[in-house]
Amino acid sequence: MATDSPPNEIAAPAPTVDAGRLLDRLAALAEIGAIEGTEGCSRLAFTDADGAGRDLVVGWMGDLGLDVSVDVIGNVIGIWRPDGCDPDAAPVLTGSHIDTVATGGRYDGNLGVLAGLEVIETFASAGTPICRPIGVAFFSNEEGSRFAPDMMGSLAYVGGLSVEEALATVGVDGAIVVDELDRIGYRGSTPCPGRAPHAYVELHIEQGPVLEMAGTRIGVVESVQGISWTQITITGQSNHAGTTPMHLRRDAGYAAARIGAFVRDLAVDLGPPQVATVGAINLHPNLVNVVAASATLTVDLRNTDDAVLVDSERRLGLFLDELADQEGVTITSRSLARSEPVTFDPTVVGLVEAVAVDLGLSTLRLPSGAGHDAQMLARVCPSAMIFTPSRDGISHNPSEYTEPADIEAGTNVLARVLLHLAGRNR
Amino acid sequence: MATDSPPNEIAAPAPTVDAGRLLDRLAALAEIGAIEGTEGCSRLAFTDADGAGRDLVVGWMGDLGLDVSVDVIGNVIGIWRPDGCDPDAAPVLTGSHIDTVATGGRYDGNLGVLAGLEVIETFASAGTPICRPIGVAFFSNEEGSRFAPDMMGSLAYVGGLSVEEALATVGVDGAIVVDELDRIGYRGSTPCPGRAPHAYVELHIEQGPVLEMAGTRIGVVESVQGISWTQITITGQSNHAGTTPMHLRRDAGYAAARIGAFVRDLAVDLGPPQVATVGAINLHPNLVNVVAASATLTVDLRNTDDAVLVDSERRLGLFLDELADQEGVTITSRSLARSEPVTFDPTVVGLVEAVAVDLGLSTLRLPSGAGHDAQMLARVCPSAMIFTPSRDGISHNPSEYTEPADIEAGTNVLARVLLHLAGRNR
Repeated sequence: MATDSPPNEIAAPAPTVDAGRLLDRLAALAEIGAIEGTEGCSRLAFTDADGAGRDLVVGWMGDLGLDVSVDVIGNVIGIWRPDGCDPDAAPVLTGSHIDTVATGGRYDGNLGVLAGLEVIETFASAGTPICRPIGVAFFSNEEGSRFAPDMMGSLAYVGGLSVEEALATVGVDGAIVVDELDRIGYRGSTPCPGRAPHAYVELHIEQGPVLEMAGTRIGVVESVQGISWTQITITGQSNHAGTTPMHLRRDAGYAAARIGAFVRDLAVDLGPPQVATVGAINLHPNLVNVVAASATLTVDLRNTDDAVLVDSERRLGLFLDELADQEGVTITSRSLARSEPVTFDPTVVGLVEAVAVDLGLSTLRLPSGAGHDAQMLARVCPSAMIFTPSRDGISHNPSEYTEPADIEAGTNVLARVLLHLAGRNR
Repeated sequence: MATDSPPNEIAAPAPTVDAGRLLDRLAALAEIGAIEGTEGCSRLAFTDADGAGRDLVVGWMGDLGLDVSVDVIGNVIGIWRPDGCDPDAAPVLTGSHIDTVATGGRYDGNLGVLAGLEVIETFASAGTPICRPIGVAFFSNEEGSRFAPDMMGSLAYVGGLSVEEALATVGVDGAIVVDELDRIGYRGSTPCPGRAPHAYVELHIEQGPVLEMAGTRIGVVESVQGISWTQITITGQSNHAGTTPMHLRRDAGYAAARIGAFVRDLAVDLGPPQVATVGAINLHPNLVNVVAASATLTVDLRNTDDAVLVDSERRLGLFLDELADQEGVTITSRSLARSEPVTFDPTVVGLVEAVAVDLGLSTLRLPSGAGHDAQMLARVCPSAMIFTPSRDGISHNPSEYTEPADIEAGTNVLARVLLHLAGRNR
């Protein structure tokens, strides 16, 4: 990428954000769909709660005088075009999402969107002059808990998913995206795919334990792991657990257990950053005294190096073949999801790191283990992410928590990075 | 035990049973609670279907002129006291149960009860003279699918469970035994525990593949395996499957998988007749991209030698301790059921074998892997069991099947054994 400012501008001061104001907005948004007795909230994509959350954020965008557009799949972008900037230039974009999982926390996604508003309010209050417009986006249905695929809005925004297909998606509850968007009033008129931003930077909680364990304030996200999700179905023979000698068994439950143990060995053998998880196992009939007739389970494999990820898939396949032979069961598998690793733009990644260091913050380069809208935007513009620590690595849980000081630090990094990318207009 | 006939009576002829009549009764009983489109039936204990099945069998007992009694926990015994027998002598008892699992077959339990009626009808038609009365029992709630424990009726009959406790049992559907017994009209007045029979012999399908695999017609059941059921609860840490490095995980799903693999290794290491099964696994939250926070699973261990069974329990416990340390999870376990192995009376076991051999039938001595009412009666009188083959070892399933020729053979063995035990009155 070409930046509009020379390198010595990296350290140029930006006004300091008001962390209290940002935390107040996070709290106000978390009240919509609040999960009683917790700090968390539940705003599944395109539900009434999602609609109410959108209304609140769009209201704040209006208060800040942003030009708000809603596209045909419900992505919302508010653009700040202060006097003196080139209103027609491609904006520098930040943001994330405001939909949550069913038992979500208040930081996942929301932080990136509201931190963007906080930066703009800070710049506007200080009269900070910029060359390019700065936009804040919240993309539809990032979580994918109700409608697959996840990152639907950002994927459609960059042209990776047709709007027709996205609108026709049927949810786990039988609802259809287009109906739900109409119902909550967020089927907009702005075309999608949208205009490529000048650059995209997303602030997000880590959702993992690495930064906290390392005692680091700022995660400099270099890449997003490639993800391979496989559903495995094992068909064996239901038998009485008391009357069937071990050597006559075709035990789907045993085969499932062996796979659960194998994927751990596989990940350890391949070494970091490879991760491998069997998160879901369902046996049938799932009774204490019956050898399971069948089992389904999921395998989640991730790596930042696609060659290694492909190798892990290959080795899993070989193991399944051997296991089926040994136990006399039938094993079939189908891909639930597969994404290649994404490498963020080295210049923007370096900018994030330089800004954080200049602010006196400890940094750690790391890959993102989760998927984020930034990986979609990376297809059309130089992109990167900033991570803040997650307490105990917990996310997708009402007890998700990030220290206010870390939120402030991450947002100040975002402010300087956005100012650098937009160009100080002197 | 003392039998009333000298050994040379073993080979004394008994009239041959009418297999067609027995199969007709099996079919008629299977029509009550029939599972549409299958040969199976569903008559959970103390349901309306169980009540209707009881009425049918009690009607047949009446047709045969048996003295029918119903005890306070619903056990039903019909006693044949033909002219010439000592009406006050303790009867020789046969029988089983007529309750089924929710998706049951037509043979499990029912065969033993209806074969008993067939033997009596055969003897009555032929005017076979006997010294002792012969009784046919069906014991309440053998399956335990709706109310725990299983073998409830026979356990109470021999004094192993108080009637008060049995009657107060709450089922998985919230129903209470006493209410259900009253509703179906089978809370009788005969005291329980009941009178110890002279001897007890039960004909049952094997419910396993051993006889079929060996090409054997008659299973001579020497013992019943001791059973140890344990529920294991694992508490780990829910984490994002993408963002949590392998070495920081406390994965309850992985620990569950390791246990599933371990119990197989344990059974193989201990050798037959040890069996070990993880039939049920439940992960929470059971999602593709979340490291499981917790898991529950069951372990079913069985052996005919209690010392080995105890050793298998000990080794499982040691493994769980090691695993908890290794993975940083908490593992607790509680016993769901524990029964010691039962050894049947060698004289009655030998009688079954001698009769079968004399009838020209191939035999195999084997333990029962499942629990049966006979193991309760063995506490109060000399007891044994006769097994007939189960096609593909399948039971507790509507496709449960035993060849008519095997049913006939097993019932003829039962007839001769009962005649021998009751004593031919010349």
